[in-house]
Amino acid sequence: MSATMKAMQFIGVEQAKLITVPIPEPGPGQVLVKVKAVATCPQWDMHIYYGKPMVDNQPPIPYPYTPGQPGHEMTGVIVRTGEGCRLPVGQSVSAWRDQGHHRYGCYAEYVVMDEENVLPVPADMPYKKVVSLELAMCVAASILRLKNTVGIKGKKCGVNGLGPAGLIALQMMLAEGATEVVGIDPNGERRELAISLGASSAFEPDDERIALRGEPGCFQVAIDCAGFPQAVASLMDRTYEAIVLFAVKKADYILRHYTLTVIGYPGHSREAAEYALRLIEDHKVDMSPLISRELPFERYEEAVGLLRSQDAIKIGFLPELGE
Amino acid sequence: MSATMKAMQFIGVEQAKLITVPIPEPGPGQVLVKVKAVATCPQWDMHIYYGKPMVDNQPPIPYPYTPGQPGHEMTGVIVRTGEGCRLPVGQSVSAWRDQGHHRYGCYAEYVVMDEENVLPVPADMPYKKVVSLELAMCVAASILRLKNTVGIKGKKCGVNGLGPAGLIALQMMLAEGATEVVGIDPNGERRELAISLGASSAFEPDDERIALRGEPGCFQVAIDCAGFPQAVASLMDRTYEAIVLFAVKKADYILRHYTLTVIGYPGHSREAAEYALRLIEDHKVDMSPLISRELPFERYEEAVGLLRSQDAIKIGFLPELGE
Repeated sequence: MSATMKAMQFIGVEQAKLITVPIPEPGPGQVLVKVKAVATCPQWDMHIYYGKPMVDNQPPIPYPYTPGQPGHEMTGVIVRTGEGCRLPVGQSVSAWRDQGHHRYGCYAEYVVMDEENVLPVPADMPYKKVVSLELAMCVAASILRLKNTVGIKGKKCGVNGLGPAGLIALQMMLAEGATEVVGIDPNGERRELAISLGASSAFEPDDERIALRGEPGCFQVAIDCAGFPQAVASLMDRTYEAIVLFAVKKADYILRHYTLTVIGYPGHSREAAEYALRLIEDHKVDMSPLISRELPFERYEEAVGLLRSQDAIKIGFLPELGE
Repeated sequence: MSATMKAMQFIGVEQAKLITVPIPEPGPGQVLVKVKAVATCPQWDMHIYYGKPMVDNQPPIPYPYTPGQPGHEMTGVIVRTGEGCRLPVGQSVSAWRDQGHHRYGCYAEYVVMDEENVLPVPADMPYKKVVSLELAMCVAASILRLKNTVGIKGKKCGVNGLGPAGLIALQMMLAEGATEVVGIDPNGERRELAISLGASSAFEPDDERIALRGEPGCFQVAIDCAGFPQAVASLMDRTYEAIVLFAVKKADYILRHYTLTVIGYPGHSREAAEYALRLIEDHKVDMSPLISRELPFERYEEAVGLLRSQDAIKIGFLPELGE
């Protein structure tokens, strides 16, 4: 094993560079993971690469950005363990929690993870199914809150926005016994993908076949994975019981319906990660179709272009594909 | 038993009249209840008496209004039963559900109730404790939703608006194990009453001692029983996890916080009524202090004036006090 590794670093707007840094050492309670694959988190990647704020009043992005960041959807194999770890060398793991952007991130050949931030995954599981466990955990946190609040079983569900989160939410709702799940997205390919993943139908936004709130056939519960006030307003007007706000909100929403429950983001939890992993292992949630392309880190610029044009849902970066 | 009874009727704006009508007959599955007491539902009473809409776009009030309406918080004794009833004559009951405003209401000496709309109550229980079971059920529905969504136990809670609903919500939150409950109301007497019912403190709206969202000491959960957009905005800015919208909303709200859950009104249920009655019987909820005055129907005008000036929280009408 070499003493150095390659890691990506954003050194300015639209400037992603591959640098060479020492392979970090795991401290107590930490493991060193050899990265098998790391997936883009499209909003976050585009935010850092193009230097555009994700939410209002955000300070400018501090370039050069921490090496390996913002990569955080990662799967790999433990190659070294710090003091007091329970997981063994050789164990396949996926990150379930973003460690924060001040530590080296996962866009690298190796990454140090706090042991508590990874979950063991089966060694023979294709990376595409488990690389985005962190995102699945995020979605699961909202889905579990919805389940505990008003329930999902036996209900007609809506999913606004068929990006990575929406396509996971759709499958989790079906796993929880939704009678049907309807997808909404302007992108026709994503609507088709939603149907292949179990959606009963998928419409463009404002399609008149989506029933209004209180009319027969309206959604009983729905999740917003779009984040635009107009899209959220439209979903609120079509949902009877509860709407989940998953997408990071870009502006304030108007709450018009007094009997509608609006479920805010409840925060990350290991419980949600374990729930998500169980659904993945039970083949109830398949994240493979979210990885549209495999590329080496060297082709990051091409990757982020595919995300921006919506020609890819996610890109899987495989260090082994690099030079 | 006479063949006729006295009932109140609103024949125009600010015109409440006592009329004489035949005592109605209970049909199958119905019971005839001799009204022991009926309590005002302040918003609703003022709405009907003064002819002011409670919510936007409401049609004008159709005078003359149905006799006995809008009385619906009632306790009394069954004096006659229709076919197929399980409750016996002589059983004390309270109404837990408003039967709708097209049927004779409870501002009368007798009222026909669907048996499923009443719950048996102990005969020796003072009427003040059980007359407003219907309101307690309404509040309980929201409290149970809050309990199931994010929990109440071990949390600091806020109550916006210390009218009848707020004073019940405060007690239910304490019964559910809140570490403390803080009341908010411009009315000093109501703040004092809240403290006597267990609130740790009570403030005027916008008191700077109420911590802002995310600061130490902010509310973890809160319930709005005020219904004004400004009051709701202020509560949202002071609550971390979830806010319950109980008060009927008078205008749209702005949702600024993406991680805040907003619990809409979940609808009435017998389960909520039984929960409320259990808390009343266990002395966890005491509604006696809500009945500020006892009056006969003949003095309805005086009663509604006391409600409007906030010199009374509720009025208990006792037919036996009448001429």
